[in-house]
Amino acid sequence: MDTDRRISIAVVKRLPRYYRYLGELLENDITRISSKELSERMGVTASQIRQDLNNFGGFGQQGYGYNVEYLYNEIGKILGLNNTYKFIIVGVGNLGQALANYTKFEKRGFILKGLFDVNPRLIGMTIRGIEVRDIDEMESFVKENKIDVAFLTLPKSKVRKVAEDLAKWGIKGLWNFSAVDLDLSPDVVVEDVHLSDSLMIMSYNINRKKLKKEAEMKKQNK
Amino acid sequence: MDTDRRISIAVVKRLPRYYRYLGELLENDITRISSKELSERMGVTASQIRQDLNNFGGFGQQGYGYNVEYLYNEIGKILGLNNTYKFIIVGVGNLGQALANYTKFEKRGFILKGLFDVNPRLIGMTIRGIEVRDIDEMESFVKENKIDVAFLTLPKSKVRKVAEDLAKWGIKGLWNFSAVDLDLSPDVVVEDVHLSDSLMIMSYNINRKKLKKEAEMKKQNK
Repeated sequence: MDTDRRISIAVVKRLPRYYRYLGELLENDITRISSKELSERMGVTASQIRQDLNNFGGFGQQGYGYNVEYLYNEIGKILGLNNTYKFIIVGVGNLGQALANYTKFEKRGFILKGLFDVNPRLIGMTIRGIEVRDIDEMESFVKENKIDVAFLTLPKSKVRKVAEDLAKWGIKGLWNFSAVDLDLSPDVVVEDVHLSDSLMIMSYNINRKKLKKEAEMKKQNK
Repeated sequence: MDTDRRISIAVVKRLPRYYRYLGELLENDITRISSKELSERMGVTASQIRQDLNNFGGFGQQGYGYNVEYLYNEIGKILGLNNTYKFIIVGVGNLGQALANYTKFEKRGFILKGLFDVNPRLIGMTIRGIEVRDIDEMESFVKENKIDVAFLTLPKSKVRKVAEDLAKWGIKGLWNFSAVDLDLSPDVVVEDVHLSDSLMIMSYNINRKKLKKEAEMKKQNK
């Protein structure tokens, strides 16, 4: 596999979807699927699927369709899911606690190692057997335990400094839930989940449909 | 404003970011900003900003820059944030509880009205004064209270049926946190937050950097 070639972001963004659909097929004991059938389930064209998978060397045999388990495992490897990532959560408020309690991340190779907060009411509390530590202990913890990834669920005002520190200490990836765009060294992968942006886009689309409906009704009443 | 014209999805996706940055400027008492200065803060080109905002009629005066508060309010209106949306949360597990406790959605016009679950251990519990109800009561509740939006934080296996029911009962928008793509009537806005997909994309990018580094080291050792 040519790992050096740049795959377009659009293709990469579709890979988790393929992985999800193939996982569902496996759960339903479907071992082989044509690009046509897969395309109907996923609501994309069969040629899109063939093109996407050709980026990674194909996997399909003309007329035989895809071997579901093989394709699932290969896409998993492309996504790096055969690795394990040791992660910490910084900010153990409502969202941080919810993420700490979510055990399915482990299926993707993400292993929770530590929890950090500044709030004395939270420090010392345990979630799934892991103690919430004072953020002052984070530097030594990250270095000693060779932490790969941090989930950032901190207030906006605190996140930039924490992210810069973590980058300095050698973190590889930040899953950023704070509504702030982080500007860090290109060595650090930043993946944003800006919930508030997502909510605003939903608001935009609901509003657009409303305005359209109102415009149509006006037209009819003319 | 020409509300009927289709704005490209790429532009729409950038609007919440403008709104966030302008909000930060307002918090820092900055009342006027040039497209050049805004572009430096946001890490996009000034011409991109002018083009984006021209989709909505401009807002800038050559040489005078943008009035921050005016622009903030206008983008807020474009995003439909001058509306209020009554919402319910369906699925009151860890994530549902975290979202229920998150009060900032109200600043965007989203008002929590109800919580629903099937789990008898959760039914009857209250969060921010709102009782968790049995999902069997959802139909009458949605209709009587004219609920606009539902946040879906349900297990994969349950979400499709619930989404179809809500669509039938006249819901306008679904904020979907379940790792399932919903295929509903075009009258219903579906905004997905597929956390697991996001995590996989981070994994892909971390893995890609690792492979690149390994390839470079191999080259050096030759």
